[in-house]
Amino acid sequence: MSSIYLDHNATTPIDPGALDAMLPFLREEFGNPSSAHALGQRAHDAVEQARVQVAALIGAQADEIVFTSGGTEASNIAIRGAVARDSSRNAIVTTAIEHPATVACCALLEGQGHPIARIRSASDGVVDPEAVAAAINSRTAIVSIIHAQNEIGTIQPVAQIAQAARRHGALVHADAAQSLGKIPFTVDGLGVDLLSIAGHKVYAPKGIGALYVRRGLSVASVLRGAGQESGRRPGTENVAGIVALGEACRIAARHLEQGTTPMATRTAALLSRLKRLVPGIVCVGESAARLPNTLNVLFPDVSGRRLLQSCPRVLASNGSACHADSEEPSAILIALGIPRHQALGTVRLSLGRSTTAQDVEDAAASLAAAWHQMRTSSPIAAE
Amino acid sequence: MSSIYLDHNATTPIDPGALDAMLPFLREEFGNPSSAHALGQRAHDAVEQARVQVAALIGAQADEIVFTSGGTEASNIAIRGAVARDSSRNAIVTTAIEHPATVACCALLEGQGHPIARIRSASDGVVDPEAVAAAINSRTAIVSIIHAQNEIGTIQPVAQIAQAARRHGALVHADAAQSLGKIPFTVDGLGVDLLSIAGHKVYAPKGIGALYVRRGLSVASVLRGAGQESGRRPGTENVAGIVALGEACRIAARHLEQGTTPMATRTAALLSRLKRLVPGIVCVGESAARLPNTLNVLFPDVSGRRLLQSCPRVLASNGSACHADSEEPSAILIALGIPRHQALGTVRLSLGRSTTAQDVEDAAASLAAAWHQMRTSSPIAAE
Repeated sequence: MSSIYLDHNATTPIDPGALDAMLPFLREEFGNPSSAHALGQRAHDAVEQARVQVAALIGAQADEIVFTSGGTEASNIAIRGAVARDSSRNAIVTTAIEHPATVACCALLEGQGHPIARIRSASDGVVDPEAVAAAINSRTAIVSIIHAQNEIGTIQPVAQIAQAARRHGALVHADAAQSLGKIPFTVDGLGVDLLSIAGHKVYAPKGIGALYVRRGLSVASVLRGAGQESGRRPGTENVAGIVALGEACRIAARHLEQGTTPMATRTAALLSRLKRLVPGIVCVGESAARLPNTLNVLFPDVSGRRLLQSCPRVLASNGSACHADSEEPSAILIALGIPRHQALGTVRLSLGRSTTAQDVEDAAASLAAAWHQMRTSSPIAAE
Repeated sequence: MSSIYLDHNATTPIDPGALDAMLPFLREEFGNPSSAHALGQRAHDAVEQARVQVAALIGAQADEIVFTSGGTEASNIAIRGAVARDSSRNAIVTTAIEHPATVACCALLEGQGHPIARIRSASDGVVDPEAVAAAINSRTAIVSIIHAQNEIGTIQPVAQIAQAARRHGALVHADAAQSLGKIPFTVDGLGVDLLSIAGHKVYAPKGIGALYVRRGLSVASVLRGAGQESGRRPGTENVAGIVALGEACRIAARHLEQGTTPMATRTAALLSRLKRLVPGIVCVGESAARLPNTLNVLFPDVSGRRLLQSCPRVLASNGSACHADSEEPSAILIALGIPRHQALGTVRLSLGRSTTAQDVEDAAASLAAAWHQMRTSSPIAAE
């Protein structure tokens, strides 16, 4: 019985087209883009073509894209770079439902004396834009907000928040690691100045990402070194990864043109089936605007972690992959006010392009069977 | 006429064995190492196997290896992490012939008030260990030194310097980006606490590197985020790159076992032939201990940059690839006291595993012909 991968928010496979695009740069086209000779210049040209492709997906200009080692580095540059720009603006406004990269950058800056306002989310997993707006003032350097929450998939009102930030002259950073390629948007539509991209969430490899930096804005790189990326990010470019990210963005745009309805329909079918098979199951943020591929469900009276262990056919997670080892309930779910015993039942199911209707049916049946088994036969389940 | 790649210090091709090792992780084995399910755990296991392989090449333990996005990030963590450890030690001792990553980190820290001593190199491209030792004192947090100079290939007396550093309780960081795999060494033999590795200099891909951190030593990551790499470097692991780096290190060890004499012989043959064909050509650091693959030669009375432009068959550089766009002479050569007009004639020729005796012969002939052509026919050459 083959496994069913429903953990696309943890990482996606590489799109075959993106892999094909990168392979020559792992083989004969191995030049250093900084080398003046022909081999180097072909690598350089490939990087620049990828820059155009990434920019196109988010409605940006090529020179607004800085390639990084991933979403974490992109968010580090955005947030830490923004507060270093202007000593008269040292405060940060963010939310209580951010990715660990944002959380850790804010914690670092808080230790250095930067005031941080962390706005709570409503229980549906969406922050109130008015509450965020109320925290922004003339001392705010940056408002940093996750575009689509990685564990529950809820889409945050970035555009409304950005309008408020602009009124106070604050920069806006969106962490778009989970939203890119899943829902259509542009940087102008969101009104953001900085936007983080993680390659491995959008069918490109791990180890590559990008930061959108609005033209005219300058943020210092966190890493220091030579002058690559027009002085905006040092280190020899990950050419193959960059080429794959560019192609993956081109492919993502094509998928988005076809609409997100088929994915949303499949995700809804999964929830519907689970509800029928697992009485009392709860979908976190069910009523909120969510990514078309993401479900965070709370199985009643069991540990979601043990549930997945007892159902190895379904490859899914209990929240952010970054915390898979933890025995603690997801901090995000706790931040939504979900009681601890209920939060422990969490299973995140994130669909992908290759997920079939049969996968959905089989996954629901397997998970439900495992849940019933735990509830009826295992003394541990009664714990 | 096929081109001859003599720019291995800028970047190497990926070893076919390393590529084969990484390909499954770009295809079906795409799991996130932090995911608890089987696909994630296989990725996790592959990362740990690579950690063993990298450690083995430098005589370290697996838990002393932290994977990074490249040599630049490794050096950033080493240097910036070291000075953040102990406020009673805030000074840095380094040299005037470092890679831009070290230069830029030191400049950043200098701006923050850290005293930096930059020891000059002798004209042969080797720093005097006594001069370095004399600069170390009880306020020295770290001595950071390039193991093999990237532009001229000279090997620095790291072990002697490390002994002096130890007497004062200072940490020692070696930038081994260029030496790894070219000459045999161990971290204990060098006596270093921290050592930077760049994948793409050792026949692994661009975008992956590693930092050796001596057991018991803790240095904070420069990037902040989730808890990957045992909390030592955040961001989803570049699994395919890591696997390739591990395999590349295993392959490098095998090559080193066979000795470096064949490579050194070929490099010597190239110099010998150039000397015969180009009267007045100078090899920088000729008398010093150098990498077996690297020649930095000064062609008389011409611009090395224009020489390479007029000899497109030979793919080489005029110094660090990080500065290929620059019209300025190499800062490294100037630091050695080489006069500007002579330094402008520089061409770095760096051989690789696949460089043949015929390549050497053809490259020397092509470069010499181009030099004669520039000297005799071109009005620009007389400039």
